[in-house]
Amino acid sequence: MIGGGTGAFIGDAHRRASRISNRFELIGGAFDVDYEKGKVFAKSEGIDSTRCYATMEDFVSGELSLPEEKRIEAVAIVTPNYLHFPYAKMLLENGFHVMCEKPMTMTVEEAEELQQLVVKTGLSFALAHTYTGYPMVREMKTLISQGILGDIQRVDAQYYQGWINSIIHGRENKITGVWRLEPEYSGISSCMADIGVHAFNMLEYTTGLQVKRVLSDLNNVHESAKLDLDGTVLLRFDENLRGVIRASQVAAGEENGFKIAIYGSKASFRWEQENPNELLLLSDTEPTRVYKPGNAYNTEFADMSHTMPAGHPEGIYESLANIYSGFAKSILGESLVEGEFPTVQEGVRGMKFVHGVVKSDKENNTWVDL
Amino acid sequence: MIGGGTGAFIGDAHRRASRISNRFELIGGAFDVDYEKGKVFAKSEGIDSTRCYATMEDFVSGELSLPEEKRIEAVAIVTPNYLHFPYAKMLLENGFHVMCEKPMTMTVEEAEELQQLVVKTGLSFALAHTYTGYPMVREMKTLISQGILGDIQRVDAQYYQGWINSIIHGRENKITGVWRLEPEYSGISSCMADIGVHAFNMLEYTTGLQVKRVLSDLNNVHESAKLDLDGTVLLRFDENLRGVIRASQVAAGEENGFKIAIYGSKASFRWEQENPNELLLLSDTEPTRVYKPGNAYNTEFADMSHTMPAGHPEGIYESLANIYSGFAKSILGESLVEGEFPTVQEGVRGMKFVHGVVKSDKENNTWVDL
Amino acid sequence: MIGGGTGAFIGDAHRRASRISNRFELIGGAFDVDYEKGKVFAKSEGIDSTRCYATMEDFVSGELSLPEEKRIEAVAIVTPNYLHFPYAKMLLENGFHVMCEKPMTMTVEEAEELQQLVVKTGLSFALAHTYTGYPMVREMKTLISQGILGDIQRVDAQYYQGWINSIIHGRENKITGVWRLEPEYSGISSCMADIGVHAFNMLEYTTGLQVKRVLSDLNNVHESAKLDLDGTVLLRFDENLRGVIRASQVAAGEENGFKIAIYGSKASFRWEQENPNELLLLSDTEPTRVYKPGNAYNTEFADMSHTMPAGHPEGIYESLANIYSGFAKSILGESLVEGEFPTVQEGVRGMKFVHGVVKSDKENNTWVDL
Amino acid sequence: MIGGGTGAFIGDAHRRASRISNRFELIGGAFDVDYEKGKVFAKSEGIDSTRCYATMEDFVSGELSLPEEKRIEAVAIVTPNYLHFPYAKMLLENGFHVMCEKPMTMTVEEAEELQQLVVKTGLSFALAHTYTGYPMVREMKTLISQGILGDIQRVDAQYYQGWINSIIHGRENKITGVWRLEPEYSGISSCMADIGVHAFNMLEYTTGLQVKRVLSDLNNVHESAKLDLDGTVLLRFDENLRGVIRASQVAAGEENGFKIAIYGSKASFRWEQENPNELLLLSDTEPTRVYKPGNAYNTEFADMSHTMPAGHPEGIYESLANIYSGFAKSILGESLVEGEFPTVQEGVRGMKFVHGVVKSDKENNTWVDL
Repeated sequence: MIGGGTGAFIGDAHRRASRISNRFELIGGAFDVDYEKGKVFAKSEGIDSTRCYATMEDFVSGELSLPEEKRIEAVAIVTPNYLHFPYAKMLLENGFHVMCEKPMTMTVEEAEELQQLVVKTGLSFALAHTYTGYPMVREMKTLISQGILGDIQRVDAQYYQGWINSIIHGRENKITGVWRLEPEYSGISSCMADIGVHAFNMLEYTTGLQVKRVLSDLNNVHESAKLDLDGTVLLRFDENLRGVIRASQVAAGEENGFKIAIYGSKASFRWEQENPNELLLLSDTEPTRVYKPGNAYNTEFADMSHTMPAGHPEGIYESLANIYSGFAKSILGESLVEGEFPTVQEGVRGMKFVHGVVKSDKENNTWVDL
Repeated sequence: MIGGGTGAFIGDAHRRASRISNRFELIGGAFDVDYEKGKVFAKSEGIDSTRCYATMEDFVSGELSLPEEKRIEAVAIVTPNYLHFPYAKMLLENGFHVMCEKPMTMTVEEAEELQQLVVKTGLSFALAHTYTGYPMVREMKTLISQGILGDIQRVDAQYYQGWINSIIHGRENKITGVWRLEPEYSGISSCMADIGVHAFNMLEYTTGLQVKRVLSDLNNVHESAKLDLDGTVLLRFDENLRGVIRASQVAAGEENGFKIAIYGSKASFRWEQENPNELLLLSDTEPTRVYKPGNAYNTEFADMSHTMPAGHPEGIYESLANIYSGFAKSILGESLVEGEFPTVQEGVRGMKFVHGVVKSDKENNTWVDL
Repeated sequence: MIGGGTGAFIGDAHRRASRISNRFELIGGAFDVDYEKGKVFAKSEGIDSTRCYATMEDFVSGELSLPEEKRIEAVAIVTPNYLHFPYAKMLLENGFHVMCEKPMTMTVEEAEELQQLVVKTGLSFALAHTYTGYPMVREMKTLISQGILGDIQRVDAQYYQGWINSIIHGRENKITGVWRLEPEYSGISSCMADIGVHAFNMLEYTTGLQVKRVLSDLNNVHESAKLDLDGTVLLRFDENLRGVIRASQVAAGEENGFKIAIYGSKASFRWEQENPNELLLLSDTEPTRVYKPGNAYNTEFADMSHTMPAGHPEGIYESLANIYSGFAKSILGESLVEGEFPTVQEGVRGMKFVHGVVKSDKENNTWVDL
Repeated sequence: MIGGGTGAFIGDAHRRASRISNRFELIGGAFDVDYEKGKVFAKSEGIDSTRCYATMEDFVSGELSLPEEKRIEAVAIVTPNYLHFPYAKMLLENGFHVMCEKPMTMTVEEAEELQQLVVKTGLSFALAHTYTGYPMVREMKTLISQGILGDIQRVDAQYYQGWINSIIHGRENKITGVWRLEPEYSGISSCMADIGVHAFNMLEYTTGLQVKRVLSDLNNVHESAKLDLDGTVLLRFDENLRGVIRASQVAAGEENGFKIAIYGSKASFRWEQENPNELLLLSDTEPTRVYKPGNAYNTEFADMSHTMPAGHPEGIYESLANIYSGFAKSILGESLVEGEFPTVQEGVRGMKFVHGVVKSDKENNTWVDL
């Protein structure tokens, strides 16, 4: 693991999820830019001090000096965004499988370089689009692929959070400390790169279709903000299939309000991340159906993504654990269901989205091809 | 009443609502283009046959021939859209108060002419933006005006229906019979003029703010449709307050999915028409609050708009009845709360919205000032 | 109308509902024990002063002195409980159809006397079990009669309110003014006679089955209360079909929390009065279905009980209006669906329930046959 | 771990939860009555074959033969019910800390013997009342102890499942294979011992009060069932505080429908296990509040029981992991919050409940003191 030391919630999420999947063991890493803090953290996790490295370079050389059977096989990158690309590249070039946080890189070019590297090395590369691991998301993907909705006519995704609101309005004085708001660490976007891209990914993941063009209206909201904290993106798949992504980090009181709706000619799906174990199928002609995991009627993909009996709620750690399981199966060459973990291709799509959206906004809200 | 004969659900809604308000009595009208049908309908309602007129002209001359104390005072226009303007104009010019279905007219110019006529005549004119009569919408409007949200930072309205879906896909063969889809009867828009305009009105009604510019992407969805059945509209109130309206008549399985969210710097409101007796107040710092009608904590405006004890659900007829009550108070010169019924001004705003949105779509999705 | 003058919410509910049904006109009545107040009220409603009577006796003699075609045909009794029986009796004996509030009488014997009187006179008698007018309750009743649930195995009804809580704890000093808490006006029970009986009625109404025995545990909760404010009732239909009714008037914060669940061998229904337009069908083998009114899939009984298109919520006034419509059809001899309005038989059942429950509680919570 | 081999969902739940807590490592156990299957399972989990034992006796003697620092410290018992007591006793007598599934024993006497043993040995003993680990349950417990509800006036718990329904009706032919339905393995009760006891525990856990008497009505529902599959229990805490537990394993379509409501003189709580991250506070005077985890307003106990930011749902594994964390802290002598894991005392209370309820049912539904 690279990054993710004391206090880093994403790092902790990855550790928990990998333990749930029961296919990984945390052996070593470079956990903190402050090496002393990293060592304290490693000790608290019961990690051998020789496997706690000061830097990425030390990590690679240290591990490569070990015999292959003792060497760390896979690395989770849970650093701020600007380090994703150089670290992922270095790891792939040295033979490590990579689990990477999103957004995958800072630029589209970097993303494509990574994609080529994955193809060339044949290593496994997973991107942490955690929400694609939820069983009801997978149920939706499978049922759509079987045609349950008819022709898709409209898509609509919302990702509303409120956490930056208190920062820009000075109720919490930590704006300078939030790397996500600093372009040099975060990249060209805050809201769209952090959460809008999840919405984009989920729409393409569940429908199996690709967005062709975007038109966006982004909003920094407050003079102190250097990046977008809020925005709306119009989507064109083709002339008759359009949609919208709405995202905000200043929607006061919203926690992690990620919702998607896929409207077809015969029926439609709605799903909400904060209530992940319910999937609604709306129909023109029948009562709405509520799908839940753990039931005999579930598709195989949903069924393998939920372990408890029906009515026992699993959550976001289990969702990420499902992705870790897929990643493990890929590393071990086991057979996979399509969509069992997000790949480098999805990382490339995501970077095209982020850059397309920022470009559209800068060019007076005009259409940009992805 | 003009229009609204047998089988017309909006006409029936107006009759029920006016009876609930207990401030109006249905005495006469011109109920159907087919006079024979109109007479049958009038009889079924117990209306004196001499007050059942064949045409609008007959109605006006007939009523004017009666002594003033026997004359019909107020008229509800519940015809297809293209007749709203000429009938409203004729009625106002002849001294009748008017309750008009929306959209108010076919063009902005007509709307402004009507507005001047209302000012000039001093008569009462109400527009049937029915949803503004719900007690929790009024609670929201009042609490926003008191500053409960802080500065408004984003607005988001959805209006999704699915009923036209079955028509364009031939599951119901009635496309030719649906006047809403015919430009000559309906005007330049279907989806935006029928439902998008409700969303627009609700955003301006609850926030007390005005949309300055719109950018839209409209979709006819199917080759057989001459008008928009689906679309998204970006909104600018000012640079730092933006929003979106999403509307569709082909969202399969959606019934009358009208929802609004108003996001402020301190807190936010969410409300859904299909569950109208709950109003959510989201906060950055406190648990979400669920406001319901009939409680001692309600504001006066909400309180006067709900008659049953808490927990006894009132619905859309009572909402429209509240608007009829406001209209009656206006006619009688009683004192009114601000916003007790939608006025001709809101009709003008609505027509500017519909025309602005259609223009933006035609001009390659560029910004149009309202 | 007898009772229901200024400030009486139930009286107002009946007036609104009868106007919505459009089958009744309020012509006269005895509205208040204080005749002066009654006259003021009558005037405010536009009622001819000669039809505003001081007493029940005056009402009967006054109306009987009129020619039959001018005479009031049907009377709604919306007085405190202890007057229901004598007034209903007097009205039936003098040829008036009766709509009566529940509980129908003070004793089982009175109830049975009324039942015989209805049979003997052939007049129409309706009991205001308002909730049976909701379209989704009627959908449930119809689908159960068609066997959708298999064998019913358990029933569970809840009726929780909190309004008396503030009274017994002195936050509102009106305990003496609340006739419902006084045995001489209310009868032998508060909670069970006012709301428990709705739960009982709904279970028998929807299942078509009869409760054979009850065992209850009632609670006055506070020393100042003379009657039960809270209680639980065990139900036996037969050995293998049991159930429970839970009711309270001191469940702080509950508004009108009436919910029922009918569990069958194949599937189950759940319905909640505060969200009356949703009916859940739970199944062992399929996703839960959400039935809503206004849809083509509805049964005929539900369909005729909802007038708006799908997604336009109707509420409790419309529910009571449906019962008024059934009552009107009965008076006019039109054909009726089974269950279109609650009858005197249901009143007898209700009184047996109330008395059985109180008896069980007094006899140390033992079984009592109904 | 004792029991919990291949295919045992509860064993898997314990393993996942202990890994999430990151305070335990699975080193060995006796996983299956079929030793060969147990060995296959141990291998799949990467467990040293020398630590995979054939029997409980082998386990104890094997581990005791190891030096103390290598010895397994704590054991999870996830066998059928009838083995809980003998195994727990043997483990405690030999110095092992114990995590035990519920119901803790077959009889009250066994439970009390275990309680004495825990006191005598000073070892840590935790009972898997998993639901007490949910953050919003802990929020409720803390806020109640702070007096937020005023005096508690009524409690109501529901635990409805439907899974046995398909068995008794022959849709799944496995009644003989379900040990829960066999008295010799399961004890004197199915429904009440398996799920009713959770409801009982939760009521005592959250209120801090003790049930004094019970009156029950249990139902085997089907001739093929030897034990109760359904029932209702009246509760008396004291004369003015009463309540009810409703439980069923044949409520068709219910998954794991565990809900509790605590009604106080000032306010009330409602919580549902299938939507565990929402806690409703109902009030007579204010809008309902919705508490959710991960927020700054949470109490410390809730806060330490949820690790993700607000809006990222955690589930039942994390709930059980919280209990494992408390258990670990107890073993290590770290300071604990009251209620951080269910103790042997709660096991004694649970057995008194199960036996009291069965006795009441047998004695014609009369009151039984606990």
